Amino acid sequence: MKKQENGLIGIVIITHCNFGKELFSVAEEIIGNQEKVEVVSLFSNDNLDTARKKLKEAKEKVCGEKGILIFADMFGGTPCNACFSFIQEDKLEVISGVNLPILLKTFSLRSNMELSLLVKEICRKGRESIVDTKSVFLERLEKK
Amino acid sequence: MKKQENGLIGIVIITHCNFGKELFSVAEEIIGNQEKVEVVSLFSNDNLDTARKKLKEAKEKVCGEKGILIFADMFGGTPCNACFSFIQEDKLEVISGVNLPILLKTFSLRSNMELSLLVKEICRKGRESIVDTKSVFLERLEKK
Repeated sequence: MKKQENGLIGIVIITHCNFGKELFSVAEEIIGNQEKVEVVSLFSNDNLDTARKKLKEAKEKVCGEKGILIFADMFGGTPCNACFSFIQEDKLEVISGVNLPILLKTFSLRSNMELSLLVKEICRKGRESIVDTKSVFLERLEKK
Repeated sequence: MKKQENGLIGIVIITHCNFGKELFSVAEEIIGNQEKVEVVSLFSNDNLDTARKKLKEAKEKVCGEKGILIFADMFGGTPCNACFSFIQEDKLEVISGVNLPILLKTFSLRSNMELSLLVKEICRKGRESIVDTKSVFLERLEKK
């Protein structure tokens, strides 16, 4: 059991307010409890310095030989900008624009995939997860 | 002012638990207060029937001549499945896989864009919002 935990890519979710916390909570409810995940919530009294400090602490809690994947809520927001201080570190990757399918897919793949491959796969699957749902529904209806 | 409010496309955000509520709260904090938006939170005691009922009530609160755009957290989840009961209605669209950039872009565009065009634009922008942030950072660094 311990071996598997050590083998997991560490995950940090950094967002404005409690959005990341709720997102992670929903993901765990769907897919089960997750090891090596930290959530960083930034509030109106945080600035880039405190954001970096919180992120550094979170990173240290989940770091390991397989590396760390950080999810930020939006490219260019303070949570994402805080990541830039660490982005040149080895075995550290950042994906912006996190949503629920992205988290679920990450949790299902991270024990069996190398970090750089995981990033590519998650970006691809993440983009596919944004679905014009009415069009898909009507296409399926036509095929019946 | 009233004319502008009537002219807005109505928005419903339907998700597991309070994920949608927190997401909307962050979006409002960034872009300012929004009219004609309802959030539906589904909990473990909800089933497809109660989900549909909650969604119907939310729809009725934001409906108007410009139509309604519903955001669900994930294609195939209960929040999304509840939308299928209404998906053949006129001037009603559904996008699954909502994230923060999607909401912000929607709020900035919905007063000046027709519903079917908005859906296409938001799906496109939403997919672009999922960013392999380290790759983008390193590319920019190389160009300097």
